[in-house]
Amino acid sequence: MPSTIYDRDLDRNEANFAQLTPLTFLERAADVFPDRVAIVHGSYRETYRELRLRSRRLASALAARGVARGDTVAVMLANTPAMIECHYGVPLTGGVLNTLNTRLDAATLAFILDHGEAKVLITDREFAPAIREALSLCTVKPLVIDYDDPVYPQTGERLGTLDYEALLAEGREDHPYRGPDDEWDAISLNYTSGTTSNPKGVVYHHRGAHLLAQGNILTSGMPNGAVYLWTLPMFHCNGWCFPWSLSVVGGTHVCLRQVRASAIYEAIEKHGVTHMCGAPIVMSIILNASSEEKRAIDRQITFMTAAAPPPEAVLAAMKQAGFDVIHLYGLTETYGPAVVNEWQGEWDALDQSAWAQKKSRQGVRYSALDRLDVIDPETMQPVPRDGKTIGEVMFAGNVVMKGYLKNKKATDEAFAGGWFHSGDLGVMHPDGYIQLKDRSKDIIISGGENISSIEVEDALYKHPAVANAAVVAKPDEKWGETPCAFIELRPGMTVTEEELKDWCRQHLAHYKVPRAFVFSELPRTSTGKIQKFKLRDQFKAG
Amino acid sequence: MPSTIYDRDLDRNEANFAQLTPLTFLERAADVFPDRVAIVHGSYRETYRELRLRSRRLASALAARGVARGDTVAVMLANTPAMIECHYGVPLTGGVLNTLNTRLDAATLAFILDHGEAKVLITDREFAPAIREALSLCTVKPLVIDYDDPVYPQTGERLGTLDYEALLAEGREDHPYRGPDDEWDAISLNYTSGTTSNPKGVVYHHRGAHLLAQGNILTSGMPNGAVYLWTLPMFHCNGWCFPWSLSVVGGTHVCLRQVRASAIYEAIEKHGVTHMCGAPIVMSIILNASSEEKRAIDRQITFMTAAAPPPEAVLAAMKQAGFDVIHLYGLTETYGPAVVNEWQGEWDALDQSAWAQKKSRQGVRYSALDRLDVIDPETMQPVPRDGKTIGEVMFAGNVVMKGYLKNKKATDEAFAGGWFHSGDLGVMHPDGYIQLKDRSKDIIISGGENISSIEVEDALYKHPAVANAAVVAKPDEKWGETPCAFIELRPGMTVTEEELKDWCRQHLAHYKVPRAFVFSELPRTSTGKIQKFKLRDQFKAG
Repeated sequence: MPSTIYDRDLDRNEANFAQLTPLTFLERAADVFPDRVAIVHGSYRETYRELRLRSRRLASALAARGVARGDTVAVMLANTPAMIECHYGVPLTGGVLNTLNTRLDAATLAFILDHGEAKVLITDREFAPAIREALSLCTVKPLVIDYDDPVYPQTGERLGTLDYEALLAEGREDHPYRGPDDEWDAISLNYTSGTTSNPKGVVYHHRGAHLLAQGNILTSGMPNGAVYLWTLPMFHCNGWCFPWSLSVVGGTHVCLRQVRASAIYEAIEKHGVTHMCGAPIVMSIILNASSEEKRAIDRQITFMTAAAPPPEAVLAAMKQAGFDVIHLYGLTETYGPAVVNEWQGEWDALDQSAWAQKKSRQGVRYSALDRLDVIDPETMQPVPRDGKTIGEVMFAGNVVMKGYLKNKKATDEAFAGGWFHSGDLGVMHPDGYIQLKDRSKDIIISGGENISSIEVEDALYKHPAVANAAVVAKPDEKWGETPCAFIELRPGMTVTEEELKDWCRQHLAHYKVPRAFVFSELPRTSTGKIQKFKLRDQFKAG
Repeated sequence: MPSTIYDRDLDRNEANFAQLTPLTFLERAADVFPDRVAIVHGSYRETYRELRLRSRRLASALAARGVARGDTVAVMLANTPAMIECHYGVPLTGGVLNTLNTRLDAATLAFILDHGEAKVLITDREFAPAIREALSLCTVKPLVIDYDDPVYPQTGERLGTLDYEALLAEGREDHPYRGPDDEWDAISLNYTSGTTSNPKGVVYHHRGAHLLAQGNILTSGMPNGAVYLWTLPMFHCNGWCFPWSLSVVGGTHVCLRQVRASAIYEAIEKHGVTHMCGAPIVMSIILNASSEEKRAIDRQITFMTAAAPPPEAVLAAMKQAGFDVIHLYGLTETYGPAVVNEWQGEWDALDQSAWAQKKSRQGVRYSALDRLDVIDPETMQPVPRDGKTIGEVMFAGNVVMKGYLKNKKATDEAFAGGWFHSGDLGVMHPDGYIQLKDRSKDIIISGGENISSIEVEDALYKHPAVANAAVVAKPDEKWGETPCAFIELRPGMTVTEEELKDWCRQHLAHYKVPRAFVFSELPRTSTGKIQKFKLRDQFKAG
């Protein structure tokens, strides 16, 4: 590349270049809105000044105990103030935040702690049983810090020698701000359920987290001082980056340990909630609340949902209940949402079924995402924009992960041909909106959680009476989908549904256990491959 | 730096990294809102699809004529559709857009064309006289393209052999999108109006333009589909990056060749304008419009102003007229605005004078700016946060220029000590808001007492007959200096010197009351800023 006049004496320096990171958002919020409430948790309030001081204390204490650049700090936390503090305090050390899915079984947790090489584990007492077992199974010996929720005390045993508040007390609140050495440095680690039994560790970097956190604001139009209710678990893709987004607008986090209807309505009424996110299950909880639980809502609340498009009836009911639903789509590998069903004003005039058709599409890229397309994975050519031809949804841009930790093979496969292969199948409509059709890999999304059908099948195959098993998604009003298992028994063997459920509970996280079992011959292709689509068709038919 | 597990096999690739550039905003807007009106210019309409096609044609034609990475394309254009197209088409070639201040004299224009090594010059026929002379003075021989405004034909002679539309016809509209090779590459060149020496060429890069363009949206809360009226010249800091910001929200540009009251009110009424920017003079034009020119405004319009804080009376009048004023601050070197007087809701409850005091401050950094402080340039230490100690306002971050073109000395001086030195003097308040104080020359020292010219001007602006006021120091044998007021009256109004003195005595300490009043038109820069030095020069002369 020949040098031009613009390449001479115009280099980067301290005055004109800064590494992108979401950590600066908190610096600014604490400077500009020091007394604004950053966190509400029951009766507890934490201002932006306090959030910064506590995050710095956390960073200082962790650094003093040896956490440095590239060290993993795992956390097993509910949506509590500590979880938000960890989103700032851990990266401030240069360390990497690994939020653990609190619903995972001990064996998977142990795998993750080992694979991520966790140096520290901060764990809420509620999850002591699973963590206790995980710690007995894993090889790493992280420093264990118990988090004792001061507002909603938990009764689980203490597993460490140090409490979270005691850790903070070790730190200095004048610990200096320190951004990443490079914006490409890792900020967090999120494990996907994936399609095989071993989860993959998705690595995010500071640059991507900065851009997606701002992208959320640009997409949702979240105003200065927004009030955000945590109905989405922060362990999911770092809460779709909203722990960082809120600082951009000096907004207030309203924590929720448990997603229950009464608590949601109470928070909405008491704290003036303006925005929330969640899987379709959360809409279900909101709409199916009892009349005692419900409260009148005197304004429009923005509800951002992802995954499966909300059914028409649910959208209509949400609107009536005071919620404006924005439909997003993304994967753990894309920092959560990177696609939005950008609503065109004129669509409001469409008749009900055409309107619902528009609402059912996943949409277009966030402006933080560079490219989004539906591509034939064989030829790597985009499919025709006809709304019919199925291809694989692919992403490219700054809000695509660094890759999978210690898994070059999976990373290379995921990025083959210069695109991130989502594994999701979809079509491209003539107007450039994508719509998911089916998932190429067998993922069941139940209550917002990804369940690998292969993992469930693996568990079933271990049972001595099971000859063959196929697990597919069964539509469910409350959970969106639930796993349903089709079983062929070994000749001469018998087993009951209840026995198989018990078996699965021993081998799987509870939410992965099939809700229904069908004992029958499995449909197969001529080459003997199980035709899962025929099993799914049974649900469509009846 | 020791390598960690996060540094292995997690490199940048085509799927997970993209160079930041504002050009992708147009790509997205044209994909998502192809039929939305991007540009209104009189009776002319251009959709986002057309804006992209025309920008690509422009890029294609320029590239075919040899414009490549790092080549300067100068434009002498009013706020027309071509100017917006150039903001996309020129950088698409890898070239650098140099917008010329249309009010400059031929000698300065010639200096700029030579210094920037302009390869192409696109020039509106309105400006033919100055450009003709400039071309006769300069050494470079750029390809000259005439822009013939199709809606508002101009009568100036044609200077080139090619017309803008003919140039576009040479290009291909399927010219491929091409982002910058590196986000640090130059995107534009803006010359500052040097008061003493030759103008300096401020170089912007794609990364900074991307971040500031988004920062404008985050700061102004500009919603999807905003309608933006061009009362700010686009040759000024690339229109504070708003030519790119609008694409982020798929908004509509409403062009204005000339900033006149009737045209402003007409556009507001006809096109549903929601946002506009401008120097304080634009507020003056809006407020001093005749009753025939004025139209009723049935909504709140966001008006972003910069430079001097708007006087209290102007803010009050603007509010009554339907405008919500956001006070910004920045320099050419910071892509336009990088500081905002972030308004705290509780300030609305303050009494008039305390409210005005808050309104008069420049404020806090954009979130796209990394650091902002008031610093003692000798020690490079921040001044105390006391609202009193004067220091130099300094900036650091990604929205600070690459540097001055071919001027290493000035660049090094501007960036000394890891900060951009603005040359503006100010104080830091205890709450972290900065406030500009008069440049040392603007402080009037009378009988040993410091008089702020801004305070005196504030008092004058409250008088119903005063349209504009500028107060400067007049040499005085007895007092050293005394304040002298230069006054522009509202159309049809009269007031005597004695009446204004009485008015000031009611509002100011007596020593601050101007000793002399001059009723005359105020000298202004091309961007509408009052040139106080010219007023002072009158005293020097005689």
